[in-house]
Amino acid sequence: MEKLDKKIKVGILGATGSVGQKFVELLLNHPWFEISVLAASERSAGKKYKEATNWIMSTILPEQIGEMVVTNCTPDKLLTEAGEKPELLFSGLDASVAGEIETKLAEAGFKIVSNARNHRFDKYVPLMIPEVNPEHLELIKKQDTSGAIVTNPNCSTIGMVMALKPLHEKFEIETVNVSTMQAISGGGYPGVPGMDILDNVVPYIGSEEEKMETEPLKILGKFSEEGIVETSMNISAQCNRVPVIDGHMECIQIKFKEKPSKEEIINAWKEFKSEPQRMNLPSAPENPVHYFTEERFPQPKTHRNLEKGMAVSVGRLRECSIFDYKFVVLSHNTIRGAAGGTILVAELMKAKELL
Amino acid sequence: MEKLDKKIKVGILGATGSVGQKFVELLLNHPWFEISVLAASERSAGKKYKEATNWIMSTILPEQIGEMVVTNCTPDKLLTEAGEKPELLFSGLDASVAGEIETKLAEAGFKIVSNARNHRFDKYVPLMIPEVNPEHLELIKKQDTSGAIVTNPNCSTIGMVMALKPLHEKFEIETVNVSTMQAISGGGYPGVPGMDILDNVVPYIGSEEEKMETEPLKILGKFSEEGIVETSMNISAQCNRVPVIDGHMECIQIKFKEKPSKEEIINAWKEFKSEPQRMNLPSAPENPVHYFTEERFPQPKTHRNLEKGMAVSVGRLRECSIFDYKFVVLSHNTIRGAAGGTILVAELMKAKELL
Amino acid sequence: MEKLDKKIKVGILGATGSVGQKFVELLLNHPWFEISVLAASERSAGKKYKEATNWIMSTILPEQIGEMVVTNCTPDKLLTEAGEKPELLFSGLDASVAGEIETKLAEAGFKIVSNARNHRFDKYVPLMIPEVNPEHLELIKKQDTSGAIVTNPNCSTIGMVMALKPLHEKFEIETVNVSTMQAISGGGYPGVPGMDILDNVVPYIGSEEEKMETEPLKILGKFSEEGIVETSMNISAQCNRVPVIDGHMECIQIKFKEKPSKEEIINAWKEFKSEPQRMNLPSAPENPVHYFTEERFPQPKTHRNLEKGMAVSVGRLRECSIFDYKFVVLSHNTIRGAAGGTILVAELMKAKELL
Amino acid sequence: MEKLDKKIKVGILGATGSVGQKFVELLLNHPWFEISVLAASERSAGKKYKEATNWIMSTILPEQIGEMVVTNCTPDKLLTEAGEKPELLFSGLDASVAGEIETKLAEAGFKIVSNARNHRFDKYVPLMIPEVNPEHLELIKKQDTSGAIVTNPNCSTIGMVMALKPLHEKFEIETVNVSTMQAISGGGYPGVPGMDILDNVVPYIGSEEEKMETEPLKILGKFSEEGIVETSMNISAQCNRVPVIDGHMECIQIKFKEKPSKEEIINAWKEFKSEPQRMNLPSAPENPVHYFTEERFPQPKTHRNLEKGMAVSVGRLRECSIFDYKFVVLSHNTIRGAAGGTILVAELMKAKELL
Repeated sequence: MEKLDKKIKVGILGATGSVGQKFVELLLNHPWFEISVLAASERSAGKKYKEATNWIMSTILPEQIGEMVVTNCTPDKLLTEAGEKPELLFSGLDASVAGEIETKLAEAGFKIVSNARNHRFDKYVPLMIPEVNPEHLELIKKQDTSGAIVTNPNCSTIGMVMALKPLHEKFEIETVNVSTMQAISGGGYPGVPGMDILDNVVPYIGSEEEKMETEPLKILGKFSEEGIVETSMNISAQCNRVPVIDGHMECIQIKFKEKPSKEEIINAWKEFKSEPQRMNLPSAPENPVHYFTEERFPQPKTHRNLEKGMAVSVGRLRECSIFDYKFVVLSHNTIRGAAGGTILVAELMKAKELL
Repeated sequence: MEKLDKKIKVGILGATGSVGQKFVELLLNHPWFEISVLAASERSAGKKYKEATNWIMSTILPEQIGEMVVTNCTPDKLLTEAGEKPELLFSGLDASVAGEIETKLAEAGFKIVSNARNHRFDKYVPLMIPEVNPEHLELIKKQDTSGAIVTNPNCSTIGMVMALKPLHEKFEIETVNVSTMQAISGGGYPGVPGMDILDNVVPYIGSEEEKMETEPLKILGKFSEEGIVETSMNISAQCNRVPVIDGHMECIQIKFKEKPSKEEIINAWKEFKSEPQRMNLPSAPENPVHYFTEERFPQPKTHRNLEKGMAVSVGRLRECSIFDYKFVVLSHNTIRGAAGGTILVAELMKAKELL
Repeated sequence: MEKLDKKIKVGILGATGSVGQKFVELLLNHPWFEISVLAASERSAGKKYKEATNWIMSTILPEQIGEMVVTNCTPDKLLTEAGEKPELLFSGLDASVAGEIETKLAEAGFKIVSNARNHRFDKYVPLMIPEVNPEHLELIKKQDTSGAIVTNPNCSTIGMVMALKPLHEKFEIETVNVSTMQAISGGGYPGVPGMDILDNVVPYIGSEEEKMETEPLKILGKFSEEGIVETSMNISAQCNRVPVIDGHMECIQIKFKEKPSKEEIINAWKEFKSEPQRMNLPSAPENPVHYFTEERFPQPKTHRNLEKGMAVSVGRLRECSIFDYKFVVLSHNTIRGAAGGTILVAELMKAKELL
Repeated sequence: MEKLDKKIKVGILGATGSVGQKFVELLLNHPWFEISVLAASERSAGKKYKEATNWIMSTILPEQIGEMVVTNCTPDKLLTEAGEKPELLFSGLDASVAGEIETKLAEAGFKIVSNARNHRFDKYVPLMIPEVNPEHLELIKKQDTSGAIVTNPNCSTIGMVMALKPLHEKFEIETVNVSTMQAISGGGYPGVPGMDILDNVVPYIGSEEEKMETEPLKILGKFSEEGIVETSMNISAQCNRVPVIDGHMECIQIKFKEKPSKEEIINAWKEFKSEPQRMNLPSAPENPVHYFTEERFPQPKTHRNLEKGMAVSVGRLRECSIFDYKFVVLSHNTIRGAAGGTILVAELMKAKELL
């Protein structure tokens, strides 16, 4: 995709939180988007961003962003320096407040791509993974506000569904069993205390299993004028927190309607390209899914940053005595699974002229 | 069980390795057993134990053990100070040598309880978890040597089977699906390099999945004069290494012949007692299985040392949309899952007058 | 010391916090003390202990303690079931509230041994390490309340001063330079977030360096009727947080008035015994200081639990080109460095008939 | 510096080890150098690089490098495809073999920049940190072989000396005291076992303290026709291994001949630029030293990758009661402290027309 004549002015909701900071980091040198508004809670509003924020990224916060004044998440405050509405808002708001704020902003004409869970199952709100269900974006035309809300799935859902999609569209998956080993950055900041996770595993992440069991049904569902018709697939999830900084590992087992060969599956992964690749979107990985043949791969430390953290790594495909196959999936939970994935959704919106 | 008049003299094979060291540590103040011989490879033989060993336990090596001279693992060398055969050998030998050495020693009249995998599936060699299959011990009478070989299962098998046993005997389990998060001490010493496991997960442990899929069938099998008749149960395992020092976590799903209620399952775990408890064996936990109701439990750091590392912790029992139920099991892999479990087998042998 | 006829009833202030929980854990089977009152903030008062507390210890909370009702930290509420004042209070209160609460309770006649920093430098309040300055305890007779306040030093101070004491009393130390690597449990709960400490070091711990530079001067000072005359010693400290659960490591360098030989120093450590050892106090380690000759020792994982966490481990004594000597000290920060050390102070009070 | 007409063909000695792999990774897209020969031990020679190597980097090994055939480290084998000597060799050889191999290759006319310690103190071998002692490079003209040997200091030395240099040249440092917290990647691969470093600190790294106490004297020394005249400076080092993947932290204390102000020191760091910056060498950081004012900075996880891992981060400058000042230094041990630093030396050689 060619370079834009003029960058699109964007705002970030919840800019001081960990997802918000990741949005800032990933948008810093974005070829299409330009950070114009940073918004957060009442407590931060009015302060310089560098003073309102406990910057926890591994890169240095640039001075010009640090100097920006944080504003409120209200329609009257969310304005660029020139006093205009930003063309797009990225929402990294906490679920405890995201629902209401996003609704009000959409009613006031703002377009929002949100990482929060609140609107994911609203009838006309698409739940997007650009490589998986690009056609769902059209749903926003049915929303009855002057703005729009588009959502990004849960981090653990994204990695799994990206690995399932190429198989599901070719061979139809009936059952999915998944057990996860999730990184601590998935819990936001401060998240799990060091004392609780060093030399430890926590076999529980609140409402994570429910998300993994329900979100894929909508994402893999069929677009219709009346909303998404969910796919029928039986999913059971077990979610665990492990002492890893970034990168969710998932042990997945699947049963097909008709069992393909191992080679057919690996080929489906290797050949998988979708609209973000065809449209050459700036954040799109060249190959959404990489398959590794080494038995010990993929691993979080080694593969989470593959294709700038936007690709999914798969390995250990083997027969299963209960299901048809089992394999392992790894994805970067704060890039592909959160801020990076959300930015790719926005790029798809731009490319489809939905901004 | 009352105190013995005279302690039983035991030897340790592979005494300088990590399992061997754990045997030393756990036998130091054992009420029945007394360390009389320390044996290892040619390279260590003739040296003082403290010089031959890179002691990696978290307790201080007592001087009188450190001063003992390490001997060879051969029938002519395996003698106590008084020049007598020890009444029992604990084997922490590496699988690369254990098979042959143990065979020769048994032929020479030694009784061996082994943590090595080599003889686990020999026809008349019992594969023992004292609470699960105490009756299997009788098999050794069929061995055609003057000595005997008894084996301990793999560490990841033991935790799982202890949680399955009370359910299987009451409600009959048909299918078991398990995904593990295993501690690095399970790989022996030096095991996985720090660079490979800090901030990482390794989704592969050599031949571990095969062990978990086959060993339970023999352990839960029926004793017969012709050897063990394996139980029929379909097991699928996925094994992962995580950055935890001690304690294997296992996400387990099971399908019963007839599905019991949640309460029936929890009660079966809570009420579970077996011969080691009835015989009051020194290393037997009061309750082999503990059930926790807190959603975030069990955890390795918090529960691995429960009942001196000999009990298994279970939690998060909940319905499963694919199987009947799913739950989490934790056990201490180097105590219950290795040296401690092996010692309990020896205690059972003594109590059953098979020594 | 012989067994008491009747246990001493004690209360715990700040019982729901991490230090408070450690008090509970260590006092559970104490031969002299019996937990009779659990007190905490307004928010917890009136609740059962097990409901008011997020129990983070690695042992199981006993049912009878869990059922106790938490009370307020006020004189009128701090009563045993029989309506009497407990004979002693252990304070694990946070420094933000400890100062005022402890003052009021002392005025109301309570005797308090506190782990909080607030009263450490009060003129007539002893700052106690029982092996180091047992004679300082007499100071409490000068306090002008009907109760008494006794304090425990900071965790990083305790390990260092225990290693310095045997050398200082024999050879007089003039200068001490220390650089620490401190465990995360030293920061209380929740303390440092997992995201900030996994695969990381934090080179700053608020006001820790000041404590290490000033507390030893009082502890090693001389008792006089007018309070403690601080010793003169130049101390410089640099404090760091590292990804270790328990156990503070300290790299120490010292310069003496007259430089002793290496052997003299090691002997001073090995021979060091003090009043707690002579009085055979229940929590006293047999040897307060253990010296290790192996170059790679001591280490947190291996040695923190030495003598139930009450001994200090020292190693790597070697000449220094700037100071006279350098060496490494390890101590368990939540046992010897906090709750365990405080309990030993209380035992000394009892043995000296100051309760 | 402008682009070269033709890339310089380089070879890597010890290419399969961890330093060798880092050379491969950093040279992959180097603007001046082109990997032409991969050499390793007899055991690897003749195999494809991807088969001879357990690739432990966090990037994917490119196919064209993986297909290269590994050769021996002998003069007759170290040839490019065209049968020519590479213009430069990077040595990541282990110290057990590096000394002799490098000597023989230099005699055979090869120019070598080595990360091994063996020749660091040879009379006419420069021990280089390009920003610190660029003039020392001239020493190689005095070497009596047709080739040349240039060395890179130890990883922990480099970070420290880069922070000392701007201060030493302005204010003259007399005494340096340093205590380190070093990453596990500094020990090569496999290095320290996971069981020994998780939840632990190891207070000993073989011969590391000696290196830190002696290497700076040569690096900061004066060039003369008769070799380097070492600077006089008293250095005492204490070295520890901590559970961090990459990034050495160092607590440093210094005493000056004449004590400058805090501002003068910070300015000296901020203004520090040297030949690599003036010559605009490809791997040179824009600012060799970054000073952070936040008390909790620098930290390994956050700052090790600053300026692609080639800059040094400094923080917490404060007065010291024993020395003049104390502060904290962080540097990336496998980039600036090893392969990256060595490559910068080679770039300086090229820019100075010494290749």
